[in-house]
Amino acid sequence: RVSWISDIIVVVSPENIETMKSIVEKYGHKRVTVVKGGITRHRSIFNGLKVFAENQSSNRLLQKPEVVIIHDAVRPFVEEDILLKVVTAAKEHGAAGAIRPLVSTVIASGEDGCLDHSLERARYRASEMPQAFLFDVIYEAYQQCTDHDLDYGTECLHLALKYCKTNAKLVEGTADLWKVTYKRDLYAAESIIKDNLSQQICIITDLKEAVAQVGFLLHESLKSQVKVEAISISLRKNDSHLQNIFSGECYNFLCINDKEYATEEIQQLVDMLEKSNIPLLYPVILILVHLSISENISFSIGLEELTKIKKFAREVKKKNILVYGLLIQCKVCNSFYQQSIHFCD
Amino acid sequence: RVSWISDIIVVVSPENIETMKSIVEKYGHKRVTVVKGGITRHRSIFNGLKVFAENQSSNRLLQKPEVVIIHDAVRPFVEEDILLKVVTAAKEHGAAGAIRPLVSTVIASGEDGCLDHSLERARYRASEMPQAFLFDVIYEAYQQCTDHDLDYGTECLHLALKYCKTNAKLVEGTADLWKVTYKRDLYAAESIIKDNLSQQICIITDLKEAVAQVGFLLHESLKSQVKVEAISISLRKNDSHLQNIFSGECYNFLCINDKEYATEEIQQLVDMLEKSNIPLLYPVILILVHLSISENISFSIGLEELTKIKKFAREVKKKNILVYGLLIQCKVCNSFYQQSIHFCD
Repeated sequence: RVSWISDIIVVVSPENIETMKSIVEKYGHKRVTVVKGGITRHRSIFNGLKVFAENQSSNRLLQKPEVVIIHDAVRPFVEEDILLKVVTAAKEHGAAGAIRPLVSTVIASGEDGCLDHSLERARYRASEMPQAFLFDVIYEAYQQCTDHDLDYGTECLHLALKYCKTNAKLVEGTADLWKVTYKRDLYAAESIIKDNLSQQICIITDLKEAVAQVGFLLHESLKSQVKVEAISISLRKNDSHLQNIFSGECYNFLCINDKEYATEEIQQLVDMLEKSNIPLLYPVILILVHLSISENISFSIGLEELTKIKKFAREVKKKNILVYGLLIQCKVCNSFYQQSIHFCD
Repeated sequence: RVSWISDIIVVVSPENIETMKSIVEKYGHKRVTVVKGGITRHRSIFNGLKVFAENQSSNRLLQKPEVVIIHDAVRPFVEEDILLKVVTAAKEHGAAGAIRPLVSTVIASGEDGCLDHSLERARYRASEMPQAFLFDVIYEAYQQCTDHDLDYGTECLHLALKYCKTNAKLVEGTADLWKVTYKRDLYAAESIIKDNLSQQICIITDLKEAVAQVGFLLHESLKSQVKVEAISISLRKNDSHLQNIFSGECYNFLCINDKEYATEEIQQLVDMLEKSNIPLLYPVILILVHLSISENISFSIGLEELTKIKKFAREVKKKNILVYGLLIQCKVCNSFYQQSIHFCD
């Protein structure tokens, strides 16, 4: 994602190395070297740094960088902007780290489990990640530090200060840098990801006027809430506009037609989605809307047809594409009734 | 909720007093006195305490308690257990407060925006809420403290220590005590509430054997995941078992029948739910399942009927009851097809 990072070292516990390697391969990550972690935070980081300095049997020696960034995997929402800020500051100061205001007052307790003193909240900060260092500074610090540091310490900035007399530059980070620690943090992370995935929707209609018109109206009514792309195309042609959308950040597709489940067109769309690699990282939502403009007074859909579509939905679910169906019946064009059908379990 | 608390003082900013009073009235909260807040945290707390000690024009004087609990509204998931712990400790020590381990290392920055020193994480704790005090201790502390304390201080335990020489007992709190501060915390809080609301489901069927049997099977397959109550009753009778469920913590009801939308029975159920006050605080989910065992090869539901049900769903939505419909067609009893209908917008 960030082009100016030349190597990414992922340090994982020994029992998870194979899993991590298969993840790296599955998602096609380049620039990644997986390294065995130690029993404490500092020992793991030190192992990661050694890849740039010591020849080891398990990993090839990588070219020593000028600056290294140290980050926690439990802070998944790090932006390029803050990475650039800490790297720039580290080049100048030797070390730099992201900080955040304290949310709670920090106190020291006495031996008796009672309050000893409280710190003035405004004078202190929470030290977060990412942090960046001149490689020589942090590697030197790790080489010099004691077993006690390696076993009980938690703060890299502290090591740089203690062993290399380097006062790290502190850089104000964003709230998104928080550490996913508790179950509630998983809830929050999930919601943030869902929020990001639902920023954009693509409405696809065929070229028929009535259907294209519905796509246009939907675009108009949705555009104040999300980014909407509405296109009317023949899916049989390899449309370049659609290809553009597929190479973007869109995970939601709404396909409107007035045919009874246009099997061929939908298969075509699924094939294009699959080829685009969009469903690799996150599930793609594909909503098939069947528009029926008639005078009929009852909804109806044949069981045989339903069986076919459900089977299809189950198949594409394996490709991380979730198919939903919506039957819209428009009677005399001023009253809408709808039924939604969830095709996959 | 906690019966041994005699009075609850809610301190709110002047512009929100009327809103708060209407909330207190709407939800029928007893024991609550609404008090005007100050411009800082400490000034607001002091205002709250004064209700027990000074005659004021706007609030009647309440009987002075032995112990007061101070809590933040931004920590909505406080349990009775921790309240009891801090109160008990405060009775003995004069003051007590909940603490949590630090999630990040705390550092002090110098004038130049660089690291001055970092604190050893294990020696410090985050001071959280609730805190409890002997009323005389904390009131004395607030009376003695300076304008600087009132304007810039944040820690009540600090005031008790500084002005009353009271070293607060520190009590380990749970992770749920965290402060809802950022947007992600709202996401987390929402998910925790939804989690709590979906712990229990009540399956209601009429007395017909085929339908009651489905209710029984559903109960069997769900009971490993949630607490399930399954009852077969005639809704026309005022069933005491159902009344028991209504007085509990159940927010999800699944009503199975084989009639085409049993209007009268459903209305009866909605009336009972409304009377129970369950929908007052959180939305109640009511899923109406229409079971159709036939040889028909197509789903169908009349538009007129659908219009009637949708109108009904819109009405009861105003009462905070969300109605969903599910049409299950069972053909030759070994293949199930379903269509779900969302009745309200």
